[in-house]
Amino acid sequence: MGRDRFGWPVRRPGWEYRGVEIEEGGYRDLGWAKIDTGRPARTGTAEAVYAAGKTPEQVVGALAALREAHPGRVAVATRCDDACVAAVRGAFGDEVLVEAGVCAVGAFPEAESGLLAVVCAGTSDLPVAREAEIVARANGIDTRLIADVGVAGLHRLLDKIGELREAACVIVVAGMDGALPSVVAGLVAAPVVAVPTSVGYGAAFGGLAPLLTMLNSCSPGVTVVNIDNGFGAAVAASRILGVKADRS
Amino acid sequence: MGRDRFGWPVRRPGWEYRGVEIEEGGYRDLGWAKIDTGRPARTGTAEAVYAAGKTPEQVVGALAALREAHPGRVAVATRCDDACVAAVRGAFGDEVLVEAGVCAVGAFPEAESGLLAVVCAGTSDLPVAREAEIVARANGIDTRLIADVGVAGLHRLLDKIGELREAACVIVVAGMDGALPSVVAGLVAAPVVAVPTSVGYGAAFGGLAPLLTMLNSCSPGVTVVNIDNGFGAAVAASRILGVKADRS
Amino acid sequence: MGRDRFGWPVRRPGWEYRGVEIEEGGYRDLGWAKIDTGRPARTGTAEAVYAAGKTPEQVVGALAALREAHPGRVAVATRCDDACVAAVRGAFGDEVLVEAGVCAVGAFPEAESGLLAVVCAGTSDLPVAREAEIVARANGIDTRLIADVGVAGLHRLLDKIGELREAACVIVVAGMDGALPSVVAGLVAAPVVAVPTSVGYGAAFGGLAPLLTMLNSCSPGVTVVNIDNGFGAAVAASRILGVKADRS
Amino acid sequence: MGRDRFGWPVRRPGWEYRGVEIEEGGYRDLGWAKIDTGRPARTGTAEAVYAAGKTPEQVVGALAALREAHPGRVAVATRCDDACVAAVRGAFGDEVLVEAGVCAVGAFPEAESGLLAVVCAGTSDLPVAREAEIVARANGIDTRLIADVGVAGLHRLLDKIGELREAACVIVVAGMDGALPSVVAGLVAAPVVAVPTSVGYGAAFGGLAPLLTMLNSCSPGVTVVNIDNGFGAAVAASRILGVKADRS
Amino acid sequence: MGRDRFGWPVRRPGWEYRGVEIEEGGYRDLGWAKIDTGRPARTGTAEAVYAAGKTPEQVVGALAALREAHPGRVAVATRCDDACVAAVRGAFGDEVLVEAGVCAVGAFPEAESGLLAVVCAGTSDLPVAREAEIVARANGIDTRLIADVGVAGLHRLLDKIGELREAACVIVVAGMDGALPSVVAGLVAAPVVAVPTSVGYGAAFGGLAPLLTMLNSCSPGVTVVNIDNGFGAAVAASRILGVKADRS
Amino acid sequence: MGRDRFGWPVRRPGWEYRGVEIEEGGYRDLGWAKIDTGRPARTGTAEAVYAAGKTPEQVVGALAALREAHPGRVAVATRCDDACVAAVRGAFGDEVLVEAGVCAVGAFPEAESGLLAVVCAGTSDLPVAREAEIVARANGIDTRLIADVGVAGLHRLLDKIGELREAACVIVVAGMDGALPSVVAGLVAAPVVAVPTSVGYGAAFGGLAPLLTMLNSCSPGVTVVNIDNGFGAAVAASRILGVKADRS
Amino acid sequence: MGRDRFGWPVRRPGWEYRGVEIEEGGYRDLGWAKIDTGRPARTGTAEAVYAAGKTPEQVVGALAALREAHPGRVAVATRCDDACVAAVRGAFGDEVLVEAGVCAVGAFPEAESGLLAVVCAGTSDLPVAREAEIVARANGIDTRLIADVGVAGLHRLLDKIGELREAACVIVVAGMDGALPSVVAGLVAAPVVAVPTSVGYGAAFGGLAPLLTMLNSCSPGVTVVNIDNGFGAAVAASRILGVKADRS
Amino acid sequence: MGRDRFGWPVRRPGWEYRGVEIEEGGYRDLGWAKIDTGRPARTGTAEAVYAAGKTPEQVVGALAALREAHPGRVAVATRCDDACVAAVRGAFGDEVLVEAGVCAVGAFPEAESGLLAVVCAGTSDLPVAREAEIVARANGIDTRLIADVGVAGLHRLLDKIGELREAACVIVVAGMDGALPSVVAGLVAAPVVAVPTSVGYGAAFGGLAPLLTMLNSCSPGVTVVNIDNGFGAAVAASRILGVKADRS
Repeated sequence: MGRDRFGWPVRRPGWEYRGVEIEEGGYRDLGWAKIDTGRPARTGTAEAVYAAGKTPEQVVGALAALREAHPGRVAVATRCDDACVAAVRGAFGDEVLVEAGVCAVGAFPEAESGLLAVVCAGTSDLPVAREAEIVARANGIDTRLIADVGVAGLHRLLDKIGELREAACVIVVAGMDGALPSVVAGLVAAPVVAVPTSVGYGAAFGGLAPLLTMLNSCSPGVTVVNIDNGFGAAVAASRILGVKADRS
Repeated sequence: MGRDRFGWPVRRPGWEYRGVEIEEGGYRDLGWAKIDTGRPARTGTAEAVYAAGKTPEQVVGALAALREAHPGRVAVATRCDDACVAAVRGAFGDEVLVEAGVCAVGAFPEAESGLLAVVCAGTSDLPVAREAEIVARANGIDTRLIADVGVAGLHRLLDKIGELREAACVIVVAGMDGALPSVVAGLVAAPVVAVPTSVGYGAAFGGLAPLLTMLNSCSPGVTVVNIDNGFGAAVAASRILGVKADRS
Repeated sequence: MGRDRFGWPVRRPGWEYRGVEIEEGGYRDLGWAKIDTGRPARTGTAEAVYAAGKTPEQVVGALAALREAHPGRVAVATRCDDACVAAVRGAFGDEVLVEAGVCAVGAFPEAESGLLAVVCAGTSDLPVAREAEIVARANGIDTRLIADVGVAGLHRLLDKIGELREAACVIVVAGMDGALPSVVAGLVAAPVVAVPTSVGYGAAFGGLAPLLTMLNSCSPGVTVVNIDNGFGAAVAASRILGVKADRS
Repeated sequence: MGRDRFGWPVRRPGWEYRGVEIEEGGYRDLGWAKIDTGRPARTGTAEAVYAAGKTPEQVVGALAALREAHPGRVAVATRCDDACVAAVRGAFGDEVLVEAGVCAVGAFPEAESGLLAVVCAGTSDLPVAREAEIVARANGIDTRLIADVGVAGLHRLLDKIGELREAACVIVVAGMDGALPSVVAGLVAAPVVAVPTSVGYGAAFGGLAPLLTMLNSCSPGVTVVNIDNGFGAAVAASRILGVKADRS
Repeated sequence: MGRDRFGWPVRRPGWEYRGVEIEEGGYRDLGWAKIDTGRPARTGTAEAVYAAGKTPEQVVGALAALREAHPGRVAVATRCDDACVAAVRGAFGDEVLVEAGVCAVGAFPEAESGLLAVVCAGTSDLPVAREAEIVARANGIDTRLIADVGVAGLHRLLDKIGELREAACVIVVAGMDGALPSVVAGLVAAPVVAVPTSVGYGAAFGGLAPLLTMLNSCSPGVTVVNIDNGFGAAVAASRILGVKADRS
Repeated sequence: MGRDRFGWPVRRPGWEYRGVEIEEGGYRDLGWAKIDTGRPARTGTAEAVYAAGKTPEQVVGALAALREAHPGRVAVATRCDDACVAAVRGAFGDEVLVEAGVCAVGAFPEAESGLLAVVCAGTSDLPVAREAEIVARANGIDTRLIADVGVAGLHRLLDKIGELREAACVIVVAGMDGALPSVVAGLVAAPVVAVPTSVGYGAAFGGLAPLLTMLNSCSPGVTVVNIDNGFGAAVAASRILGVKADRS
Repeated sequence: MGRDRFGWPVRRPGWEYRGVEIEEGGYRDLGWAKIDTGRPARTGTAEAVYAAGKTPEQVVGALAALREAHPGRVAVATRCDDACVAAVRGAFGDEVLVEAGVCAVGAFPEAESGLLAVVCAGTSDLPVAREAEIVARANGIDTRLIADVGVAGLHRLLDKIGELREAACVIVVAGMDGALPSVVAGLVAAPVVAVPTSVGYGAAFGGLAPLLTMLNSCSPGVTVVNIDNGFGAAVAASRILGVKADRS
Repeated sequence: MGRDRFGWPVRRPGWEYRGVEIEEGGYRDLGWAKIDTGRPARTGTAEAVYAAGKTPEQVVGALAALREAHPGRVAVATRCDDACVAAVRGAFGDEVLVEAGVCAVGAFPEAESGLLAVVCAGTSDLPVAREAEIVARANGIDTRLIADVGVAGLHRLLDKIGELREAACVIVVAGMDGALPSVVAGLVAAPVVAVPTSVGYGAAFGGLAPLLTMLNSCSPGVTVVNIDNGFGAAVAASRILGVKADRS
C-alpha cells in the first residue's frame, strides 16, 4: 500500500471515514455534538455528559444517545443543576439516580472489580467524594466511602487502616491543606488517586493549595486529577481496576 | 519643512488634527466616544462595539454611528446581554442578526475570500466558535463550522481532515486541555489561529490552562488570541484572508 | 483496654515505639535520617534516596542502609550529580547502573508484572522518561520505552497504537503543550499516568503549562504527577501493576 | 469496509504503519528521534531542530537527517549554544549560516512570497527578531527588519508607516510593556503576529507582562506566539504567506 | 512486643481502634462526620464547626455533638450565613451568641489567661477581628479589641503603645498593604500573629497582597495565618497563652 | 532628656498620646473608627471614606465627622452602592454630588492648581476616569477629561497632543493592553500617573495585564497606582500639583 | 501639652530625636546602616544581620556594632556565604559558631525557657531546621532537634509523640507537600510555628506549595513564616517562650 | 487640508519623516538603534542606555551618540556589568562616574530643583536607592539619601520626619514587606514614588511582595514603579520637580 504526498497511506483516515459506516461505527453525529460511541471499546468507559454550560435539552439528548448506543451501561451526566435534574428525571423517570449533581440513568451493574475505597478528609469534601463513588459504581466498581478522616484527628484515619488495606485502589479527596493523600499513601500499597477540592478560602485559592500539596506528595506514587474532579478519579480507578469494556 | 523643539515637523499631528476636517475624516466624536471611522481604510475591518460595560443606549448609539459611517458594512456589537439585544433589535429591527451574544446589523456580504474553517473541541466551546463564525461572515469571509472534534475521540477529527485541508485559514477553539490546535496544525498547511476558552473548572483557571497549552504548541506556526476571543480570531482571519478594505 | 486523657489507647504509639524493637522493625535511625525500613511491607516499594541537596556521603550512606535492609531489592537514588555518581560507583562498584541521574544499586529483578509503556513526546523529554523506565525496571516491571511520538506528527503515534494497547499501564511524558496524554488516553483502556516536563521556555513556565494541560485533559481518567517526576510515575505504575511487595 | 471493536476501520492507522513503508514515507526513525519527513507536505514547513537540551551530536544528526530528507530545503536548528554551533560548522562547513543562535544549513532559496516586515521595539529585542528573520528567509520569505521603533519615541515608528503598509504580513517583537503591536495593528491591514520577549526585569516576569499586553491588544486581529519565539512567528508567517510546500 | 510485616507493633493503631472503645474515647461518629472528641485533651481547644458548605441541620447537629461531648465548653461554628444562624438560634435559644458570622453556644468562661490584644488596621477589617475576638473569649482568653489604627495615621497606633505592651499576645488584622504587623512587631515583645484580610480590590488579589507583606515582614517573629482566618489566629493565641486544656 | 529601657525618650509617643488632647488634636474616635483629623495638615488631603464593606450608616457617620472636622473641604466617599448613595443624599441633601460611585459632600473649591488632564483609552474606562476627575476637583484641582483616545486609532490621541502638553500633570486610565500611558509619556514632559482598569476579560486577569504593562513602560517616568484606583491617582496628582494643605 | 498643625504633640518624635541622645539610646548610625540598639528592650531579641547582599566587611561591621551594644548577647548573622564566614572568623576568632549559614558570635547563654522542639520532615530540610535551632539557642532557648519524621512513614513521627508533648513550643520545618505541621498540630497543645522550605522541584514552585499547605492547615492554630525562614521561626518562638529581654 | 483613504491628513507623519530632516531632527539612526534625540524637548529627560543585553561596544556607541546630541547633558547607562564599565571608562575617561551599575558621562549640572529625598528601608536596598540618586542628580535634581529607616525600628524614621518634610518629592525604596512607603506617605504632603526591590527571599517572589504592598498602600497618593527601578523613579521625580528640558 502506497503513500500520498502527505505521508499518509493512500487509504488514510478521512477518506474512509467520510462514508456512511462512520456514523454507525465510530460516532453518532447530533449536529451540535458527536457522541463518541467507540469510546467504551477503546478506553473501557463510555462518554459522560459534562452538563455545565449545556441546556437541559442538550443533556437529555446526549443521555438518550448514550442510552441507545450502550443499552447495557449506565449513562451519566455530571454537574447538573436543578433544571437539568428535573429535565433528566422528566425524560427517564425511575431509571434516574441523582446524587451530588450526578444524574445516572440505567440499572447499576453488579460490582465486578476489586474494592475501591473513596476517602475524604472533611464533611465539606463529601460532594466530590460522592461524585466519585456514584461514577465508580455506575462503571461496575465495588466502592466503599469513608468520610471525615482528616489528619487533624489522626486516630480517625488510623482506625480505618484495616479497611484501607483491603482496597485494591484508593481515591483520597481533600481540600484545604490536602495533606491526607500523603498520609494514606504511606500506609497502603494500592494505587492512590488524589482529588483536591475547592473547599477552603483565602490562600486555598480555589483548590490550588491542595492541588500543589498533592503534586508534591512526599509519599511516592500518588497521582492527581483536577480540582473537584471526582468523576475523573472514578474513571482513573476504572482503568486501574480494569472494568469490563465489552458491556454493551 | 522644519522641526520644532519637540523634534516634530512643524505641521505635525495635533496641529492640523484640531481643524474641523478631523471630525469628517478621521473619527466621529460622540462626546463619550470617538468612533474611529478611518479604521476600515487603515486596517481592513471596521470598529466593533464591545458591549460589556456599556449601556444599551451607548451600544445603539455606537452601532448607529458605525452604520452611518460605513453603510456598506455590517455593524457588530459583541458580548451583548439580553437588555442590550432588546435595545438593538428595537432600534434596527429586521436588520439585526443575534447569535452567541453578537448583534450584527446590516446585510451580510457575499463571501469574497478563501474558506475559513472554524473548528471547536467540545460543544461547550460552541458560543465562542459561533462568535468567530458570525464576525467572520460579517466581514465577508466564507466560513464553515466543524463542531465537537476534540482529541479524546481522535477519529472524529481525522474524519474531517479533508475539509480542514480545503480551508485557507483555520480557527481552532478549545477549552480544558486546549490540545486540539496542536493536532490540527500538524495536519494542515494553512494558518492556525487558536482560541482558548474558559470552559472547564478547577485548574483550568478560567482559560489559563488552554491558553498556555496553545502558546506552547509543539506544532510550530500556531498563533493565539485572548481567552474566549472569537471576535479577535475572526478579525485576524480577515487580515490573513485579505478581505476587501474598501467596502464603504 | 483503656484510654488516656489524650483519647489514645494507653499502649499508644510513642510508648512502645521508644523501645529497641523499633530500630529493628520500623526504621533505621542514622541520626540525620530515619530510613523507613517498613515501607516495602506497607506500600510495596522501598524508600529511594532523593540525592538533590544531599552530600555524596549521605547518598552513599542511605543507599548502604537500604541495601542492608532489603538485600533482595535494587536501591535507587535519583537526581544524582557527577560527584554523587562517582561516590556511588566508588562505594558499590559493578553493582551500579547509572542513567538519567539515577543510580541503581543491585541486581535487577526479572520482570514480574504486566507491560508498562513509557511514551515521550519529544527527544528533550527523554531524561524524564528514562528515569521512569529505570525505576520501574528496578521494581520488577516489564517496561518498554517509545520515544518522540508527539502530536505534531500524529502518524508517529498512530503507528504505535498496537504496542500501546498491549500495555497494562502507560506513562506519558511530555513538555511544552503537554497534549500527548489526552490523545493517548483516548486510544487505550489502560491507566494513563501523565508526567509534565520542564522542557520548553517562556510561557511554559518551567512545566506549568503541560501540568495544567494534563490536569484538564478532555480524556477522562488521566492522572498526573509532579513536573519532571519520572520517579513518581514509576512508583505509581508499580502500585497499579501490583508488583510483589514481599521481595525482601 | 468494516469496523473492529474499537470503532476504527479495519485497515486503520497503526496497522499499515507498522510496515516498512512507514520508515520510507512518514518519518525516519533514529532511535532516539523520529524525524517527521512528511511535515513539509502536510504543513508547508519542515521540522526544525530545537537544540536546547540536545547534545551537539544529536543536533548534527538531526540536521543531517533533515538535509537528506529534504535536500532542496534549508535545515534549521534554533537555540544553539557555542558547542553546538561549533559542531554544526564542523559537520556542514560552508553551508552553515549562524545568527542569533540559529544554525541554518543549505542554500537559501529565492524569496517567493509577499513581503514580511519584522519590527522590533528596542535593540535588546533584536536577537528574537533576527531569529524570526533568518527562519523566514530560510523558508523563502522576502523579509525586511525594522529595528528600535518602540512607542516611547513614536515618530520613529510613524516614519516607517509607508514601509509597514507595503508588507503582506508583519511580525512585531517587543519586551517590557509590549505596547508596539497594538499601535502597529491600528496602522496596517496586514496580519500582525506579536512576539513578546523576555527583555525587561522585575514585573516583566520573564516576558509575562508583554505576553499579557499582546493577548489583550485593543487593536483586534493581533495574534500572539510564545515568549521569545521568533521561530514560531516566522513559521506562522510562512503559513500566512503560503510559501510553497512542495520544495523537496 | 512484636512487629507485623508492616513494621507496626502487633497491637498497633487500627486494631484496638476498631473496638467499641474508640467511639467512646476518640471520636463520635455521626455517619457524615466524625466529631473528634479527643481534641481538647490533645490540643487544648475543641473542634469548631466550619459552617461554609454545610446545611443548617448539619451545623446544628455538629454543635449538639460538641455540646454533649464537652458541656463545660462553648461550642463554636464559624462562617454561618443567615439560615444557619436562624437554625442555631432555633435549636439552642438563649445560649447562642452571634457575631461576625460566628455562632457561639454555651456560657463564656471567665478569662483565665494573659491579655490578648486584637488590633485591626481599618474598619473594614473589623469582621475578621471580631471573629478572632469571639473565638478567643470562648476559649477563656482575656481579649481587648483595638480598631482602626492603620499606619496611614501613625499617631493613632502610637497612642496605643501602652496598651499593646500590656498584652501577652497580639493579633494584628490588616488588609490592603498589610503593613501594620511589621510596625506593631517592632514595638512590642509579645508574639504577633498576623491575619491578612481580603479587604481591598485590584492588586490586593483577594488578600494575597497583605498575606505576602506579612510573610515578608522586616520585623522578625511575625507569624501568619490564612487570609480572613480570625478563627485560626484565636486558636493560635490560645495555644500561645496556654489556656487550660482540661476544661471538660 | 533621658531614655527608658525601650530606647524611647521618656516623654515618648504613647504616654502623652493617652491624654485628652489626643482626641482633640490628632483624631476623632468614633469607637468603630478613628477619623484622622490631622491628615490634611500632614499630607495635604483629607481622609476619604472607602464605602465598600461599610454600612450606609457608617458611611454617613464618617462623612459627618469629616464635614465637622474640615468644614472648608469637600468630604468624599468612594465605591458607594445605591443604598449608600441614598443614605448620603438623605443625610446631606443638596450638598451631595454623585458620580461614578463617588459621593462628594460640600461646595467644590475654585480650582487653584495647574491643569490636570485625565485621559482614558476606551469608553469602558470612563467610570474610573470620572472617579479621578471628581476627587481631583474636590481637592481644588483644575481638571480636564479626554475620553476614548486608545492607541488602536492613534490619530485620536495625536489630535490631543496640544491639550496634553498644556497639562501640568496627566492621569492616564486604560484597561486591556494598557498601552496608552507609554505612548502619552513619550509625548509630554509632565508627570504621568497611570491607572490600570479591570476592563477586559480572559487574560486581562481583572486588570493584571494593564497593571504589568504600565509597570514595564518603555517610557521612563510613568508611575502606577492600583487597578481601578482613580481615587488614588487623583490624590497623587494633588500631591504633585501641591494644592494648599491649609484649607481648613 | 499642645499640638502643632500636623496633629503631633509639640515635643513630638523627630524633634528630640535629632539630638545627640538618640545615637546613644535609640540606634547607632554607621552611615550605611542604623543599628537598632533599642530592639532587645522593645522586642526581646536583638537585630540580626541578614548577610545576603552585604559585603563581608559590612557583615563584620554590623556584628561588631551589635557585640558592642549588647555584650551579653550572641550576635547573629544569617545566610553567610564562604567569604563572609571567613571574614567573620577572621574578625572574631574563637567566639564564632558557624552552622547552616549562620555565624553566631559570643558565648551562648544557659537555656532559660521552656523546651522548643524543632522538627523537620526530611533530611533536605535540615539546614533550615538548623538555622532555627542555632538562633533559638543563641536567644537562650532550650532546643531539641527531631529530624526526618515526614508523614510518608508516619510511625517515625508517632514514635516521637512523647517528646513533642514535652515541648512548650514546636517549630515544624517541611518542604514538598508541607503536610507535617497539620499532623503535628493535631497531636500537641503547644503553639506550632510552621516553616515551609524550598526543598522540592517542579510544582513545589520554590516553596509555594508547602507555604500554601501550611496556611490552609486543617489543624487550627498553625502559624506560618516565610519560606526557608528558620531565623524568623526561632524569633517567633523566642517571643512565645518569653526569653529575657534585659540580658544586656 | 485633505485626507487620504486611511483617514490621515495628506501630509501625515511618515511622508515628511522619510526625508533627510528626520535624521537631523527626530532621531539618530545607528542601524541597530535609533537614538531618540527629540526626547529631552518632548519629555524633559534624555534617553538613557539600558545596558543589560547590550555589548560594551553598543553601550559606548549609544553613550557617544547621546553625548554628541546633548553635549550639555549627562549621558547615562544603567545596569552596566564590569566589562561594560571598563569599556565606558576606556572610552570616556575622567568624565565617567560609576555607582550602583550606573555609568554617568559628563559634568553634573548644578541642582536646579526642589529637594528630592531618596529613602530606603534597609541597607540591602541601597543599590537601587543609589541608582535613583545618581540619575536624579544627573538630571539636575537636589537629592538627599536617607538610608536604613525601615519600620522595624520606627524611631529611626520618626527621627527623620523633619528632613522628609523639607523635601518636595520623596522616593521610598523598600524590599521584603515594602511597608515603608505607606508610613512615609502618612507623614508628608509631598508626592511619594515607591520603588519595590527584589531584596528578600521565598515569598518575596523577586519583589512581587513589596510591589503589591505598595500598590495597595492604605496611604493614598503613593505611586509605584517597577521592581528595582531606581532609574524610573528618578525620571518620575524629574517630571514632578520640573527639571529644565532645554538644557541642550
